[in-house]
Amino acid sequence: MTMIASEMLETYPADLGGIDREKLAACIGECFACAQACTACADACLSESDVGALVKCVRSNLDCADVCAATGRVLSRHTGYDANVTRAVLEACAAACKACGDMCAEHEHMAHCRHCADKCRACERACRDLLASLG
Amino acid sequence: MTMIASEMLETYPADLGGIDREKLAACIGECFACAQACTACADACLSESDVGALVKCVRSNLDCADVCAATGRVLSRHTGYDANVTRAVLEACAAACKACGDMCAEHEHMAHCRHCADKCRACERACRDLLASLG
Amino acid sequence: MTMIASEMLETYPADLGGIDREKLAACIGECFACAQACTACADACLSESDVGALVKCVRSNLDCADVCAATGRVLSRHTGYDANVTRAVLEACAAACKACGDMCAEHEHMAHCRHCADKCRACERACRDLLASLG
Amino acid sequence: MTMIASEMLETYPADLGGIDREKLAACIGECFACAQACTACADACLSESDVGALVKCVRSNLDCADVCAATGRVLSRHTGYDANVTRAVLEACAAACKACGDMCAEHEHMAHCRHCADKCRACERACRDLLASLG
Repeated sequence: MTMIASEMLETYPADLGGIDREKLAACIGECFACAQACTACADACLSESDVGALVKCVRSNLDCADVCAATGRVLSRHTGYDANVTRAVLEACAAACKACGDMCAEHEHMAHCRHCADKCRACERACRDLLASLG
Repeated sequence: MTMIASEMLETYPADLGGIDREKLAACIGECFACAQACTACADACLSESDVGALVKCVRSNLDCADVCAATGRVLSRHTGYDANVTRAVLEACAAACKACGDMCAEHEHMAHCRHCADKCRACERACRDLLASLG
Repeated sequence: MTMIASEMLETYPADLGGIDREKLAACIGECFACAQACTACADACLSESDVGALVKCVRSNLDCADVCAATGRVLSRHTGYDANVTRAVLEACAAACKACGDMCAEHEHMAHCRHCADKCRACERACRDLLASLG
Repeated sequence: MTMIASEMLETYPADLGGIDREKLAACIGECFACAQACTACADACLSESDVGALVKCVRSNLDCADVCAATGRVLSRHTGYDANVTRAVLEACAAACKACGDMCAEHEHMAHCRHCADKCRACERACRDLLASLG
């Protein structure tokens, strides 16, 4: 995914401004990967026999999938860059990933939550790295 | 739309916590309405003869549509409410609506931008009202 | 919502082709309304004490919300209209609404499923009406 | 991306039915990758000096991104599998990818359209392979 995001970044026909290309490509890739993992984790939770104990996890997964998907799209656009929107969206994505990562980490005995927690941590880190690089 | 969001809110089988139902229903409705208006405005800009002058407006529209859609979904969920995520998402939505509303307001001689600016202003206001009520 | 979609439709600066404006505006409105209702119904199901009996309903809701959201966006665009894509997307939306409407109709003793079934029926009908009018 | 989808597929706690896991994982991965490429290609088109000649391409990109994103989510769910919905969604995705791939292929002198056409072709093929395997 990061490779794909990098490929498309390299084809952008105008100036990307001072943004860190590697951090940007990494963050786009993590957003799409996390959106997929969270969508799948919500569904896997629904198939667990003790789904009643997992409803807050499903909700965290669904929020995180939605926010990561929107963030991955916003970051995939460079025309008319708006630092305020980018920052606020990255903050929201980091918050959603933190909440979902913490929730899934409580259920690491289930492989889907363990993998999903990893993706959420990686995406949160990529959002914060990109935020820090924006100055 | 607000009516529909209200209807569904009333059917939620558990406690909504201390959240202001009217402000919540209004904000959900505005998010979905703004997502539609921004999607349509981006497309209308593409059909203008001077599309070259409107590319930043298209980009603002697309970001705003994505962030409003994600926000409308997050706000439509009440199970396992997380104040940090809700606040960060509302801040991002207000920022995207402010940016898009300002951009469209520069092109108010075009009916689609005029209508879209109105929807963005209304959605930004609804987000800030809900944020303020969250304390 | 239908009103809003109508308003934006009227501002489109180019020719809409031979498409039936009223059926189009109705369908866009129902898609956004159904996406909201299905998102809320999935969450309401998660808060029911017998959530284990509702996991297929949650899944239907989530699919229907995603397909309706994509369909509402595709229909909000008129530039470079492609009949094949429009038809295939409307067929998918009608199928998702039929599946979710049937599933929710099995739980009409729960107000959220009853309302959601109504929205799914209305959206399915609007998709089929628009499909029929496309010839 | 395919790797990630595979990882999550392996963690699903219930039976996946008779579905071909490799084709399913490949299709999920291509849907998310194509959604990213189309979002980026729409934006790259907006930054081309001859954007006026590319407005239909932007529209195709936006539709394809939305349909691929919805399809990738539907395919990431296995609980309460519904063959009719899956088939209709895959048909819509193949149609959107075909239209966008054909459109981008007309502009292969632009690197973003060339890469995007490749992603659309790969996603269309993955959808058709999965459809064929569903019987």
